[in-house]
Amino acid sequence: MVIVMKDNATTEQIEAVEKKINASNLKVHRVDGAIRTIIGAIGDPSNVDSREFEDMDGVLNVVRIMEPYKLCSRTFHPENSIIKFNGLELGGDRIIVMAGPCSVESEEQIFEIAQKVSQAGATILRGGVFKPRTSPYAFQGLGMDGLKIMRQAADKFELQIVTEVLETNQIDQMYPYIDIYQVGARNMQNFPLLRALSTTDKPVLVKRGMAATIEEFLMAAEYIMSGGNYNVILCERGIRTFEKYTRNTLDISAIPIVKKLSHLPIIADPSHGTGKREFVAPMARAAVASGADGLIIEVHHQPEKALSDGPQSLLPEQFQRLIEELKVIAWAIGRTI
Amino acid sequence: MVIVMKDNATTEQIEAVEKKINASNLKVHRVDGAIRTIIGAIGDPSNVDSREFEDMDGVLNVVRIMEPYKLCSRTFHPENSIIKFNGLELGGDRIIVMAGPCSVESEEQIFEIAQKVSQAGATILRGGVFKPRTSPYAFQGLGMDGLKIMRQAADKFELQIVTEVLETNQIDQMYPYIDIYQVGARNMQNFPLLRALSTTDKPVLVKRGMAATIEEFLMAAEYIMSGGNYNVILCERGIRTFEKYTRNTLDISAIPIVKKLSHLPIIADPSHGTGKREFVAPMARAAVASGADGLIIEVHHQPEKALSDGPQSLLPEQFQRLIEELKVIAWAIGRTI
Amino acid sequence: MVIVMKDNATTEQIEAVEKKINASNLKVHRVDGAIRTIIGAIGDPSNVDSREFEDMDGVLNVVRIMEPYKLCSRTFHPENSIIKFNGLELGGDRIIVMAGPCSVESEEQIFEIAQKVSQAGATILRGGVFKPRTSPYAFQGLGMDGLKIMRQAADKFELQIVTEVLETNQIDQMYPYIDIYQVGARNMQNFPLLRALSTTDKPVLVKRGMAATIEEFLMAAEYIMSGGNYNVILCERGIRTFEKYTRNTLDISAIPIVKKLSHLPIIADPSHGTGKREFVAPMARAAVASGADGLIIEVHHQPEKALSDGPQSLLPEQFQRLIEELKVIAWAIGRTI
Amino acid sequence: MVIVMKDNATTEQIEAVEKKINASNLKVHRVDGAIRTIIGAIGDPSNVDSREFEDMDGVLNVVRIMEPYKLCSRTFHPENSIIKFNGLELGGDRIIVMAGPCSVESEEQIFEIAQKVSQAGATILRGGVFKPRTSPYAFQGLGMDGLKIMRQAADKFELQIVTEVLETNQIDQMYPYIDIYQVGARNMQNFPLLRALSTTDKPVLVKRGMAATIEEFLMAAEYIMSGGNYNVILCERGIRTFEKYTRNTLDISAIPIVKKLSHLPIIADPSHGTGKREFVAPMARAAVASGADGLIIEVHHQPEKALSDGPQSLLPEQFQRLIEELKVIAWAIGRTI
Repeated sequence: MVIVMKDNATTEQIEAVEKKINASNLKVHRVDGAIRTIIGAIGDPSNVDSREFEDMDGVLNVVRIMEPYKLCSRTFHPENSIIKFNGLELGGDRIIVMAGPCSVESEEQIFEIAQKVSQAGATILRGGVFKPRTSPYAFQGLGMDGLKIMRQAADKFELQIVTEVLETNQIDQMYPYIDIYQVGARNMQNFPLLRALSTTDKPVLVKRGMAATIEEFLMAAEYIMSGGNYNVILCERGIRTFEKYTRNTLDISAIPIVKKLSHLPIIADPSHGTGKREFVAPMARAAVASGADGLIIEVHHQPEKALSDGPQSLLPEQFQRLIEELKVIAWAIGRTI
Repeated sequence: MVIVMKDNATTEQIEAVEKKINASNLKVHRVDGAIRTIIGAIGDPSNVDSREFEDMDGVLNVVRIMEPYKLCSRTFHPENSIIKFNGLELGGDRIIVMAGPCSVESEEQIFEIAQKVSQAGATILRGGVFKPRTSPYAFQGLGMDGLKIMRQAADKFELQIVTEVLETNQIDQMYPYIDIYQVGARNMQNFPLLRALSTTDKPVLVKRGMAATIEEFLMAAEYIMSGGNYNVILCERGIRTFEKYTRNTLDISAIPIVKKLSHLPIIADPSHGTGKREFVAPMARAAVASGADGLIIEVHHQPEKALSDGPQSLLPEQFQRLIEELKVIAWAIGRTI
Repeated sequence: MVIVMKDNATTEQIEAVEKKINASNLKVHRVDGAIRTIIGAIGDPSNVDSREFEDMDGVLNVVRIMEPYKLCSRTFHPENSIIKFNGLELGGDRIIVMAGPCSVESEEQIFEIAQKVSQAGATILRGGVFKPRTSPYAFQGLGMDGLKIMRQAADKFELQIVTEVLETNQIDQMYPYIDIYQVGARNMQNFPLLRALSTTDKPVLVKRGMAATIEEFLMAAEYIMSGGNYNVILCERGIRTFEKYTRNTLDISAIPIVKKLSHLPIIADPSHGTGKREFVAPMARAAVASGADGLIIEVHHQPEKALSDGPQSLLPEQFQRLIEELKVIAWAIGRTI
Repeated sequence: MVIVMKDNATTEQIEAVEKKINASNLKVHRVDGAIRTIIGAIGDPSNVDSREFEDMDGVLNVVRIMEPYKLCSRTFHPENSIIKFNGLELGGDRIIVMAGPCSVESEEQIFEIAQKVSQAGATILRGGVFKPRTSPYAFQGLGMDGLKIMRQAADKFELQIVTEVLETNQIDQMYPYIDIYQVGARNMQNFPLLRALSTTDKPVLVKRGMAATIEEFLMAAEYIMSGGNYNVILCERGIRTFEKYTRNTLDISAIPIVKKLSHLPIIADPSHGTGKREFVAPMARAAVASGADGLIIEVHHQPEKALSDGPQSLLPEQFQRLIEELKVIAWAIGRTI
């Protein structure tokens, strides 16, 4: 942390800052410049609120030097983390594809889609059973009944399951049936939920909040890791901008930035990231080209009858064609799919 | 809902849209323009996902005509709602002031601050006991012990209590000690929490999410009202923009817009909305001048020792001076404080 | 400027940074922390691109300590600047009101409106004659003919004129007829235009670009001042956010922030800032309550016939009522109008 | 255009709207719904400001049905436009690469870089000679002298030239030396400049403004086309978001969206779009994977000595490696480079 004093800061003000630095168990390094005095606070500032220094008399501004996260930082762990579970590896050379409907709707539907996405090359089945809907009047999901059917479909086609958990008290209930817990964008800063997931032994996929900075995104991972669960997968799913044509703006640049700052794997969700079927394939290709470790894509065999998000779901044959294109792009950057 | 067909839409495509409208229990009104055909879907579209029509062949775009909320809409309830509880009225001519520390830290602290804000004219005591912190390493609040001390302080100085609830399972626990449940900005779309609060008989103060549109903000109120709890108070607390100088940008314009669209009262939080003490008073004045029904302001007698958010807390004497200014501004627009 | 080295930076890398600092005519102050080395570059860094240091091997990040502007900074000039011209003062205790139509449309129109706004208390007449329209097919303004009529109207009712200049080659032409040049939001970073205006002796009103940070806003003022014209008036007119209900979001918080960082006066434009007549009065009140030095408001006696922006224009009687409310608010904060 | 009346709209109010529609040379189609009356205004509404209807008594809201642009719309011209000049084709199967320094700095520099980018496969040389700098104290470019040197370098290595024009009065001066005029992001809504370029016979590359919606971006193209110059190339170069880690957020999704709405070619600028060298290659790959018709990339053989934007410039060998990767990605989607 570096504290910059105002031009006319008094000796008393400077000394008060130094005293507060010492009281925070940091060491003082003071530099008297031509115009301004700068005071470095050396040590581990992770428990210090830098705004407390901003608030002191004579202080111009305060600059944080260290990132606020540790466990998910590449500084802490320079190699890529590879999340291993049930024979799969996420974060290695092979790009992993998760696919399935927005919501589990019926036995027939989930078996049909599971078969199709498995044939095309997906290894993980997605599908919501507890749905966070912005309208209290909309379809809320099939709940645990849906999850049990989904497990049967996944087992039949040798797929793993990722599905969203909305509340702390669903964690144990869902445990026997799922392979990856998903934290939705609206829950990225639901700290009780993150903390509860920090002690499970199953991987957690965290979606980026729609107005979350990359630092906040990584802090959500840090919450889960701070409790001992290091199997965190990040997922870029679109941010909110001023653009009105699409629901969200899929932030492809977040992918190489997260890869630089963190050792955790990151995947992309071009379905929610665009909200329109016709843009899913180009954005999926862009995500892979930019270095994503995986994709999560909505696929539905009858999108016009889907109970949610039909308009952003690929048809099975579109999904299959996309996977073929992605294989060549993956090869261009030395990966497989 | 209005469906606009493409220039070259075929008769079959137009008829398919008409069939789907009928299947949604809406009536078809078709207008054949010079270039394009427009189809009105007349009736209550609240259960229809307009994107399903966008997805059909020959459709250019779909325009929703009705807002997605009902209970909180001024169309449904033209008069201002006045929330009455324990002898107070929120939403009437009198502007209500909630004040107190960011966090309850100790008995001495909360009694000291409660006395000061009460003397200055506040009628509701704010203070967090369960703190949603972005860092897992930061102070997490005193919990129920803090709340019990806060109740004693509130009772002594005849104040009511507003404090944040983070989880469904805290609702019952907190019930005997609080007067208003607060839903934080990060939980504005925590639907299980909203639904659980929809059956309590105490008022709920909902903070706007930092990237929430006004429509989404109102939908959060709708969730709570849909379960039968009509005592909802909205709170503008700053949105996220590209500006880096302040944490958030307090969106004053949200106040007159919400007053136009909804009958619910809306207050402003200039402390979180700016993050810096020196901007709290000008923004509090702006909020009242624009029509806010109340304010929620952080006050601390020793901000430099506060365990959280000291830099945005007013000193008691600053708070008192602000209230005096606000009285004149309220008078200018025919209100009291 | 402070350069933070990576944990594993080598001695060679550190020395290379020090060499580059010296080559930039800055002095090196090096602090070896427990984990990281921090290097202060002391002196005037205004000609140095800090990203050049970011680019060096072993550098983690670079933090700028000084703001990039000088002439418009309160550090450089601690007292408020008062812009004086033709007997008026802008930036003092009295709040100045500019009012008039979006566009000058006809002699009858501008005389009618000039009379009305003058009676209500405005001292400056606004009105566009060169219109920057987003559509090439829309009304483009009356040009110099319109300006000459506007001058006559202004003279008759003892008003001054502010109007937008779009191009460098209009400056001289307009000079005899105007009192304040206005730079529109879309031209806030039209550097040739700013530079050309830096040598005129008439005041320049600069509107904030719709995605400009406050720092960029102040840099536009700096451009004009750097050529010798210190008579710069800033104008907040709404920023672009994700909200779709209004065209722009009037950023009231920019007013106290600019007042803190700069000695220049700042006014607000609630007409463009909201785009809807019914929100102009509450936002004008909010602007004054937060410390604005003036307002610029669209007024039209027949808004339904206006050639541009009718829907955001106040009627003369609404304008008059607003001025009365503003007088009380101004008084609450020790000012007049 | 569709006008939705309020629930309680009177017959007089409805008739007033109908009269105004007729006065605008549009035809009225009225639909009386269960709750609300909806009035369609059929015909060409491009000269009508829809907000004028919003402003009328009894009107709830107004919905525009037609996009405001015509010439650049795919509705008007369903096939891709291919811009042909000097033997090159932009917008066809072959992806075009523009490369070069941020600024032309010296004869030696521009010849060196021109040679390198030509060898790697670029066909167009980029480089600024008039620089729009946010600081009045920064390097402003070599002007026409720089352009003449650049022409020699381009001719020697059989490259074409794209460079930015800042002002109307530079257009004729630059004409003999350039192949493509570039309009910078800050000038995307500099309407006099766009209009002046609408009558030249050389192609114009328009960069997206940093807060421009896609509709506004297309309207800038429309300005140029409305004067008769149909050779417009669009360029996505990053939008402003809340993210602080990068200067801009390169909006890859704008590429497939523009391709859908318009027949014009679109390229991407990953150098300005990220501001950091290490993210240029992944974002260039993403742009091509998503369907971009070209790229514009900053390359410098001595970035640490560059007078501007060194930190975002690729080294020649990095540029060459990138082109190799791009060839495979282009092949995956049926294109060449």
